[in-house]
Order: sequence, then C-alpha cells, then structure tokens
Amino acid sequence: MMADKGRLFGLGVGPGDPELITLKALKRLRAAPVVAYMAARGKAGNAISIVAEYLSEDQIRLPLIYPVTTEKLPPPFCYETAMSDFYDASAEAVAAHLEAGRDVAALCEGDPFLYGSFMYLHDRLATRYETEVVPGVCAMLACASVVGAPLVYRNQTLSVISGVLPAEELARRLADCEAAAIMKLGSNFAKVRAVLADLGLLDRALYVERATMANQRTEALASIDPASVPYFAMILVPGRRWAS
Amino acid sequence: MMADKGRLFGLGVGPGDPELITLKALKRLRAAPVVAYMAARGKAGNAISIVAEYLSEDQIRLPLIYPVTTEKLPPPFCYETAMSDFYDASAEAVAAHLEAGRDVAALCEGDPFLYGSFMYLHDRLATRYETEVVPGVCAMLACASVVGAPLVYRNQTLSVISGVLPAEELARRLADCEAAAIMKLGSNFAKVRAVLADLGLLDRALYVERATMANQRTEALASIDPASVPYFAMILVPGRRWAS
Repeated sequence: MMADKGRLFGLGVGPGDPELITLKALKRLRAAPVVAYMAARGKAGNAISIVAEYLSEDQIRLPLIYPVTTEKLPPPFCYETAMSDFYDASAEAVAAHLEAGRDVAALCEGDPFLYGSFMYLHDRLATRYETEVVPGVCAMLACASVVGAPLVYRNQTLSVISGVLPAEELARRLADCEAAAIMKLGSNFAKVRAVLADLGLLDRALYVERATMANQRTEALASIDPASVPYFAMILVPGRRWAS
Repeated sequence: MMADKGRLFGLGVGPGDPELITLKALKRLRAAPVVAYMAARGKAGNAISIVAEYLSEDQIRLPLIYPVTTEKLPPPFCYETAMSDFYDASAEAVAAHLEAGRDVAALCEGDPFLYGSFMYLHDRLATRYETEVVPGVCAMLACASVVGAPLVYRNQTLSVISGVLPAEELARRLADCEAAAIMKLGSNFAKVRAVLADLGLLDRALYVERATMANQRTEALASIDPASVPYFAMILVPGRRWAS
C-alpha cells in the first residue's frame, strides 16, 4: 500500500432518505474525487440517487452496470459466472483510479457489509489499497422505524433471512424464530407469505417497501398483490413485546 | 394527540463515533428543548456522551438512571419488576415535558429498535404522543466495519443473538448459523467462547470491543481475558466469503 496510491472508501449511504446518511459518510463522499456506484442497466442507481444532492460537478462518476438483474438465467448463462466477472471488472475499474492516486468513494445502499454490493469490491481490493468502511443505517432498521415496531427485546434472537431461499429452508429457519427480517422479496413474495401463513406468523408480520424513500409503502401483508412487490421490500416479524 | 403537546423523538445516535450519527438525528437533536437519556448510576451515560459536542447549554437534560445493572439480583429483588418500574417512571418523566408542550429527544446508542432502551419508552408513549423514530447505525455493523469483515453474502442467514442465553440455547442457535453476531458479552464471554469452541467456530469468530469509540479494542478471541470484557463487546462470525 504505497503512499501515492488512492484510498478506497466503502460508504454506507443509508436506506433512502438522504438525511439518513452519517456525518462521516458525507464527509468522505464530499472529499472523494471519484464516486463509484452500482446500477442496473438503464436505471439511475439507488445509491447514487440517494446522495445526488451532495455531489459536485467536478467529481468523477464511475457507474458499474450490473450485467444481469435476476438469478434465473437460461442456460448456458450462469448467474455466478456473470456476477463474478462483473465484480472482477468493477474492481479493476476502481483500481485504475486508485493506481492513479485518486481516492474512490464506493457507494452502497444501507450498510456496506450487510448484503452490500461493496463487499465484492472489498474482497478484491482491501488487501491492495488502504481501505476504510463507513457503516450505514441498514434497510431493516429503517423499516422498523417507519412502522414503529421495536424488533428485538432483551434476549430475543433476530434472524435476518433472504427471501430467495427455497420454501422448505425458509420454513425451517423461521420455525424457531423469535423475530425476523426477510429481505430480497420481489418475485419471492408469494412464496414467503405462504410460508409465514403455514407457520401462523402472518398476524405478526409487517410489510414495508422502500422505507424512508419518497415512494415508501406499508400495507397489511394479506392485501399485497405479489406482482407489485419490488426487490427493495421487506417483511418484519417483530419480537413479542416484553410484558413488563 | 393534541397539537399543543410536545413530540417524542427516538434518536439512534450510532455506535460511538460522534460522526456516525445521521444528519436527521442531529437535526432533531439540536431542535429539541429536552434531551432524555439512560445511564447507570454514577456514570455519564454512553448515549449522551456520544452527542455531548452537539448539545447547547439551554437544552434541558433529563437523565434516567437505571436502578440495577445486572440481571442477577439477590432475592427478594426481581430484575423484571425493578426494570418495569423504572421504565414506567422514565416514561412519566418524559411525558411531563410532552404534556407541557416541549419536544423530547430520547437518545439511544446504536439503533432505537435493535435491543434499544428507547423501545420501552416507545411502548409506553407512542400511542399517547406524536412519535418519530430515527434509525441509527447499530453496533453490529460498526464492529464489522472496524474489523473489515463482510457479514453476510448473497442468501446467507444472519443470526443476532444475546450472549445472556444459557449455553445450551446458544449452542442450539449457533449450530445451524451461517453468520452470527453475539451481543451483550460482559460476564457471559467465557460461556460464549466455550460454545464457539465446541462448535468449531473459534477460527471464524472475531472479537470487537467498543467499536468506533476512542478506546476501541479488537483482539484474537483466544487471548482475551474474560474478566476484561465489557457489556459493550461483541463477537462476530462472518459468513463464508462467496467463492466467485
């Protein structure tokens, strides 16, 4: 790690409301000559949209465009290979700036290390360049705040689960749960709702979509149209209130 | 909820570094005429210490002093009763200001709804007064950031577990875990470490104490003196790195 190389900053920009960024992330963001972010093809990108108002004209934007947006690809295409190649290429695009001595702020919705896209840059670059990770407010806690639902009391266990898992695996992991956050809904919504119904957890479950963003939606789980559920939606099963 | 009543703000002030507060929490904090916080008897209080530099002289401080600091009390004393009475009295102390039309910012280390002390005020006051919860960066994610350890990849499950649980229950909940954060260590440390050793998880476990605070400590789990472990310490078992 030579002194003339740039530094890599992994910045959690929070769940959506631009005011839910931390003072530290904002300071690092404003000081960075290069701002890297991931986005789907043809989309603005969530992370960069959250901080748009804080950027200046002279900062270099480095968009990293996802090659695919679903894990279900027709053969011979392979999601794992496509994503691995994408992360390799993204890391090298970032490294080019670091090699040239320019600091890079890599943005991440929520927190960088909780299912964050930054993890894959970190794995490839943190041993080669000076790296700092600034944690952020994660979507799970933003969701709890907007529905006014304390998540875990005292010594309850919280299970943070991906909705992508098969129904049997979801059922197994939820059967014993005291509190849960189920992320990555989208096309997995109907499956997750059915599992919760089987387990008798529907009454305790809360649905939140795009928490703290302008188009935030919270609604009873029963009335949700599965076709309307975006990837950035979540179901919370808050822990039972401590009786005392 | 009458218009002349004060509003209650539950503010996550983050894990310790004063720069890890959000813009929103700082704005609400500065605007509040009354700042409520919990603290152990004879101690300054973690939450108020984190934001001390942001407070002005004319803000009213409302300390809420814990009656006990351990769950193990000699009979006839009962932790549950003592804490329940304390939360009742705390809520009424806050309510007195709200009734008088003064907004109250109730501080909480980390996030208000993830094992946060604010939950108990929220349960007692949110139906009576206009309430807003501002989520914060939780200690778990701060710990991951300072040790540079991505927590969960892709569809891994994260278990957030209290170290207060009995060894058998810890073993049961950790046996199946892909990634874990074990909070509330203190006097529970030796028990938790023994369980991790039994499960073959010691090599993957990371110890972090007072993450992002001035006296932060990270050390190999094996070399920690159990007598030195504070309550605000955590063990992380990061998810296995996605191979691609």
